[in-house]
Amino acid sequence: MVSGRPRRPPGGSVRPVFTVHARADGSRARAGTLVTAHGEIATPVFMPVGTRATVKTQPLAQLERLGAPMLLANTYHLMLRPGAEVFARFGGIHGWTGWRGAVLTDSGGFQVFSLARDCVITEDGARFRTATDGPIVTLTPESSIAMQRAIGSDVMMVFDHCVPSTASEAEARAAMERTTRWARRSRDARGDSAQQLFAIVQGACHPALRRASADALTDLGGFDGYAIGGLAVGEQADVRNDVTELTTERLPEDRPRYLMGLGTPTDLLDGVHRGVDLFDCIVPTAWAQHGRAFTSRGKVDLRRGAHRLDDAPLDPACDCDACARHPRSYLHHLIKAGEPVGWQLLAFHNLRFYVRLMADVRAAIASGTFTALYAARREVLARPEREEC
Amino acid sequence: MVSGRPRRPPGGSVRPVFTVHARADGSRARAGTLVTAHGEIATPVFMPVGTRATVKTQPLAQLERLGAPMLLANTYHLMLRPGAEVFARFGGIHGWTGWRGAVLTDSGGFQVFSLARDCVITEDGARFRTATDGPIVTLTPESSIAMQRAIGSDVMMVFDHCVPSTASEAEARAAMERTTRWARRSRDARGDSAQQLFAIVQGACHPALRRASADALTDLGGFDGYAIGGLAVGEQADVRNDVTELTTERLPEDRPRYLMGLGTPTDLLDGVHRGVDLFDCIVPTAWAQHGRAFTSRGKVDLRRGAHRLDDAPLDPACDCDACARHPRSYLHHLIKAGEPVGWQLLAFHNLRFYVRLMADVRAAIASGTFTALYAARREVLARPEREEC
Repeated sequence: MVSGRPRRPPGGSVRPVFTVHARADGSRARAGTLVTAHGEIATPVFMPVGTRATVKTQPLAQLERLGAPMLLANTYHLMLRPGAEVFARFGGIHGWTGWRGAVLTDSGGFQVFSLARDCVITEDGARFRTATDGPIVTLTPESSIAMQRAIGSDVMMVFDHCVPSTASEAEARAAMERTTRWARRSRDARGDSAQQLFAIVQGACHPALRRASADALTDLGGFDGYAIGGLAVGEQADVRNDVTELTTERLPEDRPRYLMGLGTPTDLLDGVHRGVDLFDCIVPTAWAQHGRAFTSRGKVDLRRGAHRLDDAPLDPACDCDACARHPRSYLHHLIKAGEPVGWQLLAFHNLRFYVRLMADVRAAIASGTFTALYAARREVLARPEREEC
Repeated sequence: MVSGRPRRPPGGSVRPVFTVHARADGSRARAGTLVTAHGEIATPVFMPVGTRATVKTQPLAQLERLGAPMLLANTYHLMLRPGAEVFARFGGIHGWTGWRGAVLTDSGGFQVFSLARDCVITEDGARFRTATDGPIVTLTPESSIAMQRAIGSDVMMVFDHCVPSTASEAEARAAMERTTRWARRSRDARGDSAQQLFAIVQGACHPALRRASADALTDLGGFDGYAIGGLAVGEQADVRNDVTELTTERLPEDRPRYLMGLGTPTDLLDGVHRGVDLFDCIVPTAWAQHGRAFTSRGKVDLRRGAHRLDDAPLDPACDCDACARHPRSYLHHLIKAGEPVGWQLLAFHNLRFYVRLMADVRAAIASGTFTALYAARREVLARPEREEC
């Protein structure tokens, strides 16, 4: 890997919230600490997705057992339901949900791109419907930040303009430049909030645009961290990895980097290797719903008939209830029968797998063994499921 | 209430498994102990429904926290999936699921009535399909008991012939008399099994038939307990209560009585008052799925907009996570958003409500205060939800 050309943000207005403790040899991977109002987050870290202020199938007591210090929630969804009034009443998402860890809120930019109907985007912001014949809703940099301030997340995201990863250079450039202007407006809307704010690098899969975006946001300054947006939307993994790498090379070394919406465990390893510190993804819970699990020996599809009489634990190296208390045969039954408990147990298992993977990654970076761990884990994770059983 | 005319079963072939410790004044309610291979069950008791060897939304760790000593599972469902082979491999339902408490299995008679398609019932048993164009399946007294022996439940039920509660006298008589003949075959099929076996009283809503059924099964002997079947299928509560009362009056005092498939908390109180010892019902989990909860102050419908900003706990008298850790506003949100965690939290709450209700009932019987508790609790439970908020 070529070394990056980091830029430091101008001015000292942003409190230092991130420290790098260790760097891997032969990799851009790094281990650090992100200080938030709800705990110090050891990075690299995976954030379970709590779109509607709840992680699918995982009540608060389970989340506390999980070992994940930080959740992601979505401004788009929470603006629509329950709405800002509820957060005002309960003093934010922590008082309302009881979650004591950290929370990062996405700004709604990605959901405007992926969920909104009849969407019209202007320089002011986005106007759209959330359902056919539904009322018109608007989101702007200012209203997104206002909603995120109401939610009271530890880390807010700027409102960004997302385009497909296959967008033309002209389309991607316009959206990227608008994202930069919206980042300034998001930053200015922050006011006196003590909540952190991350900017979002856009530019689709055009290297020059990604570099220009990273440079412009770094020059703009006033951000506590930087995200890479607009990926994990269908592009090839090698393209994504290239974009990630050229972007992290351009971002300040002393700021956390968040690769939005990724991914499988392999994707996370690839991101860490390229200097990413934060991740979020629905894969652990979504795969669980269909009986698919990550294990220390590779992927396992519990729907397969081979597991009907299988008395082995799902993963002998895992400490979750699915693995510690049930044979695969029973988990297979729950999944095949469509029983909620099957999803619940496997979702926790997959989340635990992600949390432990990130802990192993951090330890390996600290002990100088990351590249060995990276190669070994990627090999296991690439195994087709039939070989595992 | 008139006193019953209990019959003792002839012969001493059945080990005593049930002891009555206390009886209420002014009521047929009684407190006892049912000794099983997986614990001593204090009665009256509510059994959560684990149709497919799992209680909806409640993993094993939650069930252990619940305080319910005994679950119900269904032979009909477990015969179809996972099938006897799986139970043979794992030494029964306990080894397979990890559940250490007691299990009662229904025989499949009710599911043949309520779920089977193209069903033909002959003296031999039932022939039916479980899905349109599915293969033909048979259930007989012998095959039901064989499956229940494979499952390894603590209490097996005889295979019975269910008819609608509105069945004519002739139809109900034929089914009742067949149920008696099938009870004998079920008993004979028990072989050397140490699993308990309960007979099932039928007779729809015809008092003479119910009495004749109870007498015939008592005369037949060899049963560890008696169930009242064919109720909770649409009949009026007062009719059900009358049938329950005239049946319990006829059954042996020294055997446990199980009112199958009931019901709301009010139904349980009514059953206890008429001498019933065991209950099962899907109401706690099914109501929870739709945001409906039982509380110490009455029923609460969390879907109502009145709860959107409600900072009160669901039930200040409850120790479950839904009540102890979240305001109603958050629970309202989870239910309105269709989030799995909403169902999970409320299902546990409702099950805890049932478990505590039965504990309160047992304590009241023991302390001579059951009739007061009965009246007070029924009054609270009858309140419409709008008065509660």
